[in-house]
Amino acid sequence: MPLVSHIKISKNMSVLSLARQMEAAKVLGAGRFGKASRILGEMFRDKECTKFISLAGPLIPGGLRSVITDLVGGGYINGVVATGANVTHDILEALGHRHIVGSENADDVRLKRRGLSRIYDLYVTQRSIEELEKVTYHMLDRIPEEKRRDIGSHELLWEFGKQLKDKDSFVRTAQRRGASIFCPGIFDSMIGLHLWTYSRLHPFILNPLRDFSRLVDMTYERKRVGVIILGGGMPKHQVLIANTYRGGVDAAIQITLDRADGGGFSGAPLEEAISWGKVKSPNNLVTVVGDASVVFPVLAVAALQQSTAKPKGDRVR
Amino acid sequence: MPLVSHIKISKNMSVLSLARQMEAAKVLGAGRFGKASRILGEMFRDKECTKFISLAGPLIPGGLRSVITDLVGGGYINGVVATGANVTHDILEALGHRHIVGSENADDVRLKRRGLSRIYDLYVTQRSIEELEKVTYHMLDRIPEEKRRDIGSHELLWEFGKQLKDKDSFVRTAQRRGASIFCPGIFDSMIGLHLWTYSRLHPFILNPLRDFSRLVDMTYERKRVGVIILGGGMPKHQVLIANTYRGGVDAAIQITLDRADGGGFSGAPLEEAISWGKVKSPNNLVTVVGDASVVFPVLAVAALQQSTAKPKGDRVR
Amino acid sequence: MPLVSHIKISKNMSVLSLARQMEAAKVLGAGRFGKASRILGEMFRDKECTKFISLAGPLIPGGLRSVITDLVGGGYINGVVATGANVTHDILEALGHRHIVGSENADDVRLKRRGLSRIYDLYVTQRSIEELEKVTYHMLDRIPEEKRRDIGSHELLWEFGKQLKDKDSFVRTAQRRGASIFCPGIFDSMIGLHLWTYSRLHPFILNPLRDFSRLVDMTYERKRVGVIILGGGMPKHQVLIANTYRGGVDAAIQITLDRADGGGFSGAPLEEAISWGKVKSPNNLVTVVGDASVVFPVLAVAALQQSTAKPKGDRVR
Amino acid sequence: MPLVSHIKISKNMSVLSLARQMEAAKVLGAGRFGKASRILGEMFRDKECTKFISLAGPLIPGGLRSVITDLVGGGYINGVVATGANVTHDILEALGHRHIVGSENADDVRLKRRGLSRIYDLYVTQRSIEELEKVTYHMLDRIPEEKRRDIGSHELLWEFGKQLKDKDSFVRTAQRRGASIFCPGIFDSMIGLHLWTYSRLHPFILNPLRDFSRLVDMTYERKRVGVIILGGGMPKHQVLIANTYRGGVDAAIQITLDRADGGGFSGAPLEEAISWGKVKSPNNLVTVVGDASVVFPVLAVAALQQSTAKPKGDRVR
Repeated sequence: MPLVSHIKISKNMSVLSLARQMEAAKVLGAGRFGKASRILGEMFRDKECTKFISLAGPLIPGGLRSVITDLVGGGYINGVVATGANVTHDILEALGHRHIVGSENADDVRLKRRGLSRIYDLYVTQRSIEELEKVTYHMLDRIPEEKRRDIGSHELLWEFGKQLKDKDSFVRTAQRRGASIFCPGIFDSMIGLHLWTYSRLHPFILNPLRDFSRLVDMTYERKRVGVIILGGGMPKHQVLIANTYRGGVDAAIQITLDRADGGGFSGAPLEEAISWGKVKSPNNLVTVVGDASVVFPVLAVAALQQSTAKPKGDRVR
Repeated sequence: MPLVSHIKISKNMSVLSLARQMEAAKVLGAGRFGKASRILGEMFRDKECTKFISLAGPLIPGGLRSVITDLVGGGYINGVVATGANVTHDILEALGHRHIVGSENADDVRLKRRGLSRIYDLYVTQRSIEELEKVTYHMLDRIPEEKRRDIGSHELLWEFGKQLKDKDSFVRTAQRRGASIFCPGIFDSMIGLHLWTYSRLHPFILNPLRDFSRLVDMTYERKRVGVIILGGGMPKHQVLIANTYRGGVDAAIQITLDRADGGGFSGAPLEEAISWGKVKSPNNLVTVVGDASVVFPVLAVAALQQSTAKPKGDRVR
Repeated sequence: MPLVSHIKISKNMSVLSLARQMEAAKVLGAGRFGKASRILGEMFRDKECTKFISLAGPLIPGGLRSVITDLVGGGYINGVVATGANVTHDILEALGHRHIVGSENADDVRLKRRGLSRIYDLYVTQRSIEELEKVTYHMLDRIPEEKRRDIGSHELLWEFGKQLKDKDSFVRTAQRRGASIFCPGIFDSMIGLHLWTYSRLHPFILNPLRDFSRLVDMTYERKRVGVIILGGGMPKHQVLIANTYRGGVDAAIQITLDRADGGGFSGAPLEEAISWGKVKSPNNLVTVVGDASVVFPVLAVAALQQSTAKPKGDRVR
Repeated sequence: MPLVSHIKISKNMSVLSLARQMEAAKVLGAGRFGKASRILGEMFRDKECTKFISLAGPLIPGGLRSVITDLVGGGYINGVVATGANVTHDILEALGHRHIVGSENADDVRLKRRGLSRIYDLYVTQRSIEELEKVTYHMLDRIPEEKRRDIGSHELLWEFGKQLKDKDSFVRTAQRRGASIFCPGIFDSMIGLHLWTYSRLHPFILNPLRDFSRLVDMTYERKRVGVIILGGGMPKHQVLIANTYRGGVDAAIQITLDRADGGGFSGAPLEEAISWGKVKSPNNLVTVVGDASVVFPVLAVAALQQSTAKPKGDRVR
C-alpha cells in the first residue's frame, strides 16, 4: 500500500515544485491539488487534446479575466463555456468600465440608491450596464440580419469579439485565436436583458441548439478532450454532456466549493459523470474543494511551469 | 432590543406550531426557518400574488415530485422554473419509469456497465432514457411545425404537458392548471439531447427569448410577485432577473446549501439582489441554509397549515 | 432494487407522518431525515438504551435551550456532552440574563464599545459575563475544597446544577434528573476564564480524566448506547471515543453543516468511526446535512410522536 | 473607490509574485489569499511578534507534518495549539509508523477487520496505536511523579518531546526550539486513551488550567501576538480566548471550510472575535475559505519568500 509523504517547503521553491510536493502527499486536499496540477500540465502540453474551460461564479469581474484571456491567447484553451454574467463583465471592461472594490456587508438599499450593483464584495455601476445596452444594440445591428435570425451564442460572441478592441477581453481574444465561447445562459444576465429588448424590436433568434451542435463538432472526432471546471452550474454540465457522443471526456479537473451531498450536479464528483457517459474513465479526474479564484491561478502557474513550451515574454501569451 | 425566545416542543404540536416556536427564536437557522414559514404561508394565502418556484438539484427524481405537483395542482404556484434534469425526470416517471435507491459510494464504471446512471444515491436506467427519445420525438411531431420553428421552453412543455397522462407529473399538472413551466436550460439535460437530435432532422428552434417575454408578461403588471427558490443555478437567476422590469419581487425565500463567500449567484443572499433591482426591499426575504429536500416539505406543510383555505381531501390538491 | 417513493404532503398531516413520508423517499437529504427520525424515535422508546447528546455551536443561546432541558427532564437523554460556551450561556440565562437579537453584519468594533459580544446574529452583554464571575466564584466556594482539588467537569456541573434555581436550565435539570453533563472544553469558554482566575487564588484542579472515567462507566456495561450529535467538535469525538471500550455505540444520528472532504472529524460520516471501534455497525447510523437548530426540533417532535409514552402536559417533560 | 485589478500569471513567476498579483485583485477569495500572504509574511518577519498556529483536522497525518515542524524549527512559530489527534499522529510517525494512502469510499467494516482505521482517505494501523500505548506508558514513567500529579498538556508534551528522537516530529522540534505545544483536548484522542488508562494505575492528573496559565503568560506582556488558524475547533478558540487579557491578538489569518452561518465558532469570521476582546482590531485579519492542506503550504512559501531572512539550505529550517 502506498504511503503518505510529507510536503517539504523551502524558501526558494517554485510553484511547480510545491505542487509536486503536494502531489506526493497523495491524500486529502493537498494530494488532490497536486494531482490536478499534473493533469492540467499534461493537458496544456498535449497538442492533440481539445481543451475546454467552464466558468461559473464571478471570476471575470473578480480578478481572473487576464488569467482566462491569456490562457486562451496562449492556445492553452480551445473552448470556453461561461455564464452570461462572465461574458457581460468581460464586455463591460472591454468598454472601459472597471469593477469597484466593495464590501459583502454593504447595505444593498443604499448601494442601489448610489447606482451600484453588488456581487459579494465588488460593485459595478448601473450606468455601465445602461451603456452596455447601446453598445450591444450597435454590435447586433452590425450582424447580418439573416445570421441574426438563427444564431447560437458562440456565433454571437464571435461577432461581438470581432467588434471589441480591448486586448484583455477573453471574448475578443477567443475570436482572434479561433477559440469558441459558449454561453448557454447568455439571456440570463445583464447583456441578456439587452438581447431580449433588442429581440422585441428587431429580427433576432438565439438558438441554443446551434451551440450544442458546435460543441459536439468540436469534440466528437477529437483525439482527446480535456475539461477544466471552475465552479458548477450550467457551464459544467453543458461541456460534459456534449461529450457523451464521443464516450466522455478523457481528463477533467474541477474546483468548487459546492458539496456533493445535496445531490446537485454542481457539486457532484466527476466520477458520477462516468455512469452517464460524460466522462470516460476514473483516470485523469480530480476534484479540488476550494475557491476557484484562489486555487486556479496557482494551479495554472504550476501547469505552465510543467509545460515544456517556452514562455513568450512576461505573461502567458 | 428584541430577545431570543426558546423553542418549546411538545409531543402533540403541529408542524405550524413548531414553525411558530422557531420563528420566536428569531436568530440563527431556526429563526430563519420560522420566518420562511410565515412568508410562505402569506404567499400561499395571497390570491393577488403571482408565485414562482425555482428548482435546481435532483428534487423531482429524489422524492419531491408530488410535493411540487400538488402545490401546482392546488393553485399555490403559478410558475415553475426548473433545470432540464428536473423536467427530464418528471417525464421519465410520467412514462412509467421509476428511480432506484442506490448508494453514493457506488462504482460508477460498474454502474455504467449495468446500464445505470447515478445521481448521488439514486439511479435511473439508461434504457428509460433511450425510451424517452422515442416519446420525445413523438411528442414533438405532434406540435405544429410552425410553432416548432420558434418555440420557448414554456410553450414546448405546455405541449408536452397536454400529451402526458400521469396525474403525478408536474409538467402535465401545470398545463391543466394554467401554470407555466420554464426550463431555461432544457437542452442541457437528457431530454435536451433528444431535442437536439430531433432538431438535426426536423425544423425546430428553441428560442429562450420567448421564455423571457413570457416571464416578464407574467410578472410586469402583477400586484405582487413571490418566489420560492430551491437550490440555486440558472432557475434562481432567471426568475429574479425577469422581475427587474417591475422593480423586483415582493417576497422571496430560498433554501440552499451553496455558500455566499465564493461570490456566485447560487449562494448569494437575497439582499444582494436588491442592488440589482431583482428584489424590491429587505422585507419578506429570507435564506434558510439547508438541503431543500429536507427543509421544503416541512416548510410547505407549515405554510399550508397557516393558510385559511380549507384542504380538499388527503393531499394538498 | 428498492424504488424512490414520492413524499405526499397534506394540510393536516402531523410531524411524524411527514417524517414517515420522507423516510419512504429513501434517498437524498429527505430520506436521511426520515431515517434519523425513526432511529431517534426508537432510541427515545428504548428504556435499556443509554442516550447521549453532544452539543456544539450556539444552540443554547440561540433558541434550543428548552428543547435540550425538556428532553433531559423527560428522561429522553442520560448524558450531555457540551462545549463550554453552551454551558456558559445556560448559566447566564439561569442568572436571569437574556440573549439579544442582533445582526450578523454588525460592526464588531461598535458592538464592543456598546458592551455587547456577538455570536453570529445574537448578542450577549459583557456585563452579564462579568456578573457570571462573581456567581461562579460563589458556586465554587460552596464546593468542598477536597472535591475541588481533583474534579471532573461532570462533577463540577453537578455541583453547579444543585445551586441553580432556574427550571429551564439544562445544567440544573440534569442534576435533578440524575443525568450527567460533560464539558470537555469547559475552560475554553467565558465560564472557563472564571474557573481559571479562581484557580489562581484557590485550590482547584479540573481533571478531564475523571470525566473520561465517568463516560466509560456510563457506557461500558450498558445494553445499548445511542448518541445524538448536534454539530461536531470535541463533544462529538469525546462521546464516541469513550465507547470504544464497549465496542462502539449501537445507534447514532448526526446533524451538521461541516463537510467530510476536509478530513476533520466534525464533518466525518459516522461510518468512518466504525473503523476506529467507536461505532458498532453500519446499522442505525445516519447523517443529516443541515443546521441543527432547524433540523433537530423537527426531528425531536417526530421522535416524540413516534414514542408510545403518553405526553405529560403541554411540553415534553 | 479602489478598483479590482486582474491577476497576471506568467510561466516563471514565483509563489510570492503570484500572491502579490492575487492581493492586487483585492476582492473575493483571491484578494483574501493575497492579503493573508502579506499578513503572514509580516508575522514571519516580525521578531517582536509571538506567533501561534492552531491545528484542527488531520494535517499532521495528511502531509503537513514537515511544514509545521520546519516552521517551528525555523523559529517562525512560538506556540502550537493542536488537537489530540494531530499530536497522536506526530508521535506515531516519530515511532516509525507511517500513514497509508486509502480511499474515502472504503468499507469501514472491512477496514476494521483488516486492522486499519480511517481518516477520510488515509489509514493508520491499529497495531501502531497499540504500540503507542507501551511507548506512552514508558514516556510517562520517566516523568517525575510529582510533576505528573498536576501537569498541563504543554508540560507533558515538553517531556515527550525530550524523549522523542525523530527530527521530523513537531513535538520534538518544539521542545528543542523552546516552542510550546498546547493540546487542550489531548485526552480526546488515541494517545488520550493511553493517558487515561495510565491514570487508572499511576498518579497522573492532567490539568488544563496550567495550559491556560502558560498561554496567558506567553501572550500577556508580549509586544505583538499573531495567530495562524488552520481549521476551527477548540484549538482556534483556545488560542484566541487566552489573548483577551491583553486585549486581543494583533494579527490573525484563518483557513477553513467551515461556514459562518451555522453560528459556531469554528466558521466564525475573525471580526466577530473583536466583540469578545479576543482580537484587537479589524486590521490584519483575514479568512481564506478553503482546505488548509491546499492553501497553507502555498501561503507559507509566499510568506517565506516575502521574508528578508536568508534561507538556510533546501528546507525552511
